Amino acid sequence: MASGETGDRVTAAVLIIGDEILSGRTQDTNLRDISRYLGTFGVDLAEARVVPDVIEEIVAALNALRERYDYVITTGGIGPTHDDITADAIAAAFGVELYEHPDILALMTARWGGELNAARRRMARVPVGGDLVKNPVQGPPGFTIGNVFVLAGVPQIMRGMLEDVGPRLRTGAVTISRTVRVEGSTEGVIAAPLEGVARAHPAMSLGSYPFFGPDGYGSNLVLRGRDPEEVAATVAELMAVLKDAGCTNVKEVEPGA
Amino acid sequence: MASGETGDRVTAAVLIIGDEILSGRTQDTNLRDISRYLGTFGVDLAEARVVPDVIEEIVAALNALRERYDYVITTGGIGPTHDDITADAIAAAFGVELYEHPDILALMTARWGGELNAARRRMARVPVGGDLVKNPVQGPPGFTIGNVFVLAGVPQIMRGMLEDVGPRLRTGAVTISRTVRVEGSTEGVIAAPLEGVARAHPAMSLGSYPFFGPDGYGSNLVLRGRDPEEVAATVAELMAVLKDAGCTNVKEVEPGA
Repeated sequence: MASGETGDRVTAAVLIIGDEILSGRTQDTNLRDISRYLGTFGVDLAEARVVPDVIEEIVAALNALRERYDYVITTGGIGPTHDDITADAIAAAFGVELYEHPDILALMTARWGGELNAARRRMARVPVGGDLVKNPVQGPPGFTIGNVFVLAGVPQIMRGMLEDVGPRLRTGAVTISRTVRVEGSTEGVIAAPLEGVARAHPAMSLGSYPFFGPDGYGSNLVLRGRDPEEVAATVAELMAVLKDAGCTNVKEVEPGA
Repeated sequence: MASGETGDRVTAAVLIIGDEILSGRTQDTNLRDISRYLGTFGVDLAEARVVPDVIEEIVAALNALRERYDYVITTGGIGPTHDDITADAIAAAFGVELYEHPDILALMTARWGGELNAARRRMARVPVGGDLVKNPVQGPPGFTIGNVFVLAGVPQIMRGMLEDVGPRLRTGAVTISRTVRVEGSTEGVIAAPLEGVARAHPAMSLGSYPFFGPDGYGSNLVLRGRDPEEVAATVAELMAVLKDAGCTNVKEVEPGA
């Protein structure tokens, strides 16, 4: 929604790298986890893309996103196998070489002894000018270069790495999200009062997410904004106009309920 | 993975439209459902994007994707509320007007009687030159124009609409997917034999998806290809070289297991 955008907005994009997501083999959950994590720092996820394990595709998407948004977070493709080409793609996008980072080599040698084969050494590669992103879960770290953070695809490792991303971000005003649930009324009834309130509060973002519950039609109306007083006033105003429009079951619920 | 692409490949992209996905409020599952559905017709999902409810963003992404891929499937933003702007964006991208489709008006009048308010009439809007996509679940139909299919965002409705998409597609050779599971070996051990097999079969796509199971490290190796004989030969070859490399627990499992 165009309303709700402000000049001091801090934005991010997610770039999901992986044939397994595009083929439908794996259900991505990283997008939602990253979005929610960034939200706590006042950073808005503005776009996401899923690209295959093809260098040219990763480079093109990364360059488009890193020029446009404050941050880009990539997931996937940093393991040891031949289809893990994210590091190569990031280096190509930035026009720099990869080198084997001594800290990662040391970490892996401690873990596996002196016998690091070529596959494992692949995981030590970091672009020149990059910095490491801690991995508190398992395996080698991720890395960051410019405004790009390169994380693992495995969700529990990705979430662990994220904890080392947040403190490095320029933070924005945190968005407050509140949800008003209407039961027993269709969106056809809700739409006009909702739109009236949205027009009166251009700095707020209002969305309608319909459902079919045990009592028939209903919708979760999500109100998002950065000014706590305006958010509270808008919630009250919306609940009042919905009741005026004949909605009898209107209540606030927990976000995501 | 670059290997596995062929000249007669039929491709599609998914464009997910919705602030609720980017904000992390809603977990998207449509991408995976669409990919699996398209796979049964031999159509490869080649890229996906998630964009906010902003007309200019939808238009730009749609035009980029529809020029590049054989088909584009959009989800979300076709309801009656003010934040549902997908129809407007599709019309803008194609440079045509919207009109109220008589079949949809008739369907809604039959459902709600003569009193169609402005919000409901929004759902009857279809771009000039478009055709309807049946909705066997509930509510008004989706539509198609050019190589673009415009479906609902609610998963059960989206899946219903998909059934009217498949029969309209130019189909490709169906991709066969098989999975070899290695338990008790790390990717560092698996990588070299896997890469050797991948290089010997450039028409196949081979990916490694590690996990941590009760017996420690392991990986699902997914082999995808269109030639049934080559797929079978590659599976046998991979299992043999893995055993030669010292992997003791190698077996084929059901895809997605």
